[in-house]
Amino acid sequence: MQTLHVNLPGGTYPIHIGPGSLESRLPGLAETLGSDLAVVVTNVTLAGLYPDRVTGALARSSLRVEQCVVPDGEQHKTLGTLATIYDRLMELGVSRKSLIVAFGGGVVGDMAGFAAATFMRGLPLVQVPTTLLAQVDSSVGGKTAVNHPEAKNAIGAFKQPVAVIIDPTFLATLPEREVRAGLFELIKHGIIADLALFEFLQERKQALAGRDWEFWEEAVARSCAVKARVVEQDEREEGPRAILNFGHSLAHLIETHTGYETYLHGEAVGAGMLFAAHASREWGLLSGEALTRVRGVLEPLTRPIRLPPLGEAEFTRLLMHDKKASAGRLRFIALEELGRAVIREGTDPAELWPIFQRFLKEAPEVLQAGTG
Amino acid sequence: MQTLHVNLPGGTYPIHIGPGSLESRLPGLAETLGSDLAVVVTNVTLAGLYPDRVTGALARSSLRVEQCVVPDGEQHKTLGTLATIYDRLMELGVSRKSLIVAFGGGVVGDMAGFAAATFMRGLPLVQVPTTLLAQVDSSVGGKTAVNHPEAKNAIGAFKQPVAVIIDPTFLATLPEREVRAGLFELIKHGIIADLALFEFLQERKQALAGRDWEFWEEAVARSCAVKARVVEQDEREEGPRAILNFGHSLAHLIETHTGYETYLHGEAVGAGMLFAAHASREWGLLSGEALTRVRGVLEPLTRPIRLPPLGEAEFTRLLMHDKKASAGRLRFIALEELGRAVIREGTDPAELWPIFQRFLKEAPEVLQAGTG
Repeated sequence: MQTLHVNLPGGTYPIHIGPGSLESRLPGLAETLGSDLAVVVTNVTLAGLYPDRVTGALARSSLRVEQCVVPDGEQHKTLGTLATIYDRLMELGVSRKSLIVAFGGGVVGDMAGFAAATFMRGLPLVQVPTTLLAQVDSSVGGKTAVNHPEAKNAIGAFKQPVAVIIDPTFLATLPEREVRAGLFELIKHGIIADLALFEFLQERKQALAGRDWEFWEEAVARSCAVKARVVEQDEREEGPRAILNFGHSLAHLIETHTGYETYLHGEAVGAGMLFAAHASREWGLLSGEALTRVRGVLEPLTRPIRLPPLGEAEFTRLLMHDKKASAGRLRFIALEELGRAVIREGTDPAELWPIFQRFLKEAPEVLQAGTG
Repeated sequence: MQTLHVNLPGGTYPIHIGPGSLESRLPGLAETLGSDLAVVVTNVTLAGLYPDRVTGALARSSLRVEQCVVPDGEQHKTLGTLATIYDRLMELGVSRKSLIVAFGGGVVGDMAGFAAATFMRGLPLVQVPTTLLAQVDSSVGGKTAVNHPEAKNAIGAFKQPVAVIIDPTFLATLPEREVRAGLFELIKHGIIADLALFEFLQERKQALAGRDWEFWEEAVARSCAVKARVVEQDEREEGPRAILNFGHSLAHLIETHTGYETYLHGEAVGAGMLFAAHASREWGLLSGEALTRVRGVLEPLTRPIRLPPLGEAEFTRLLMHDKKASAGRLRFIALEELGRAVIREGTDPAELWPIFQRFLKEAPEVLQAGTG
């Protein structure tokens, strides 16, 4: 097992990574917090796959343990589902001394995290991410949110957990498509800030489809380390943290335009990263050789994304709903070399539109869209 | 005009108090922030009374100005109304560079503040409180929230504004009943932490019913200073800030048990403070003379509150829904002398019930309740 520490102005918290970390870490942590009650927030799928895994671990502590089960899927990451979580917390008699355990993927982590940030203005939270995406990305950094029908993660809060516990063996039950989707964010951390991680993943390509838990522990730990380092520099996303949004401008557009249901977040980010790398090449920031290396790792993992017809006006409107947009411009994350992202402030959607058109032509195996 | 400063770990913000402070301070402030858009969140009543007051002040700046109008009343301080605010912000194209101006009483301040805390994970906020209650209490300290049907302010966040602007002349259009309700919180700050303020208010009793704006500027400023001092010691309500909840255990019970619609928050706090003073006397903490002084100032301002029938089980259940409750006990704020409150941890509702019964008998002009 490996333990990383995330150091933020508001305090330090550990990320424990390794097979069995849930059982070895959670009960003691819950005791240390002095909590009276732990509420495990999870989804129906995980509640079926692992009915006793978290509650069983907590049964070794003196806490009363209860569950709050939400539906599975990004389309349920709404204010409406959040309201049912609040109702359940109220019904269970949750107090400020109670502990919220988010057991699931990014959707569960985001919603349980936002509930923990806001119920009684803040309860302690432990993140137990079960998908690869959540393990390498959403459980580290403290962002929590629900979607608005018009924009992803439009309503949320920064909520740092008291700990993150990552057991890579949960990947055993994760559909192959979701593992692949998570890989995009894992690889992203290499592309934007850690060439050695990118090369490690390039060399161990075969392991990406397997169940070598030592490999996964190492890959996840190195990816979390990148994310933790970036977040430490900029907890509130006022500056350098924005590089984590590499690939996300187009990804948010894809998700909003397809209604969040057709493609996984990671898949949208995969296409978005290829687009951002393509744009970086067009702007003369990235070398052709580096673009080729990025494509060589990412493209074998993609499956074509088909967008509903999309004209320039709609393209611009959807891009401008991004939280990082203002005054008709957006903050676009580009690459200046492999392993180093750069924040491109004031990018005009009108400038992106022709690049987007050329990208569609060059990479139809990544992204396809009719005209609006 | 007076200006106080609130110093918190996350930064310092000013409270400007005085007639005309809105016009003299808001436009420059909005410019300084570099905002592109200001959204004035207000309620239908204020939008009718002062259709151009805030938008007119902002028209002197270069910002685009829009309004978001919500219904008037505590019964609308819900997740449902909050969702309509999010919809409106989305529709207006709000970005992280936009400014939220909360123009109204505590309900508007709480909802607009929570929306500003959570929309895009945080937008700058200026509080322009128009009721006495909001001026002396809810606009200072950063607490924002909406109610859950089972508990007041159950869902919320700490959100410090960039500034608070208080013009006491807004009290001219405030119904007399609401002025009186706000007085309870103003006087509370004297009772719990500032004997000189209590005595100033005692001496200037006549002014409490009038429109001497110099008096109001002074009274509001001194009250805000107490609150700011307490909040500075304990932004997140982990310790001494709890004294601000003097009177609030019973007040929350009254409001929840009567459905938030019958009595104003300040009225409930008035009854709750008299109950807490009574309990403090029973516990031997407060002298009989001090209790008499507290009653002498508060009781002339009260009108009888009538509670639906209430048995001990329901009394306990409602008290335990308070955010400060856990493990069957609550944190009760008592007085150890006039001008000094004390936090009484681990108070048993079973101990409060007979005191409550005696209070009902002794002060029927304050509170009446049938048995459940």
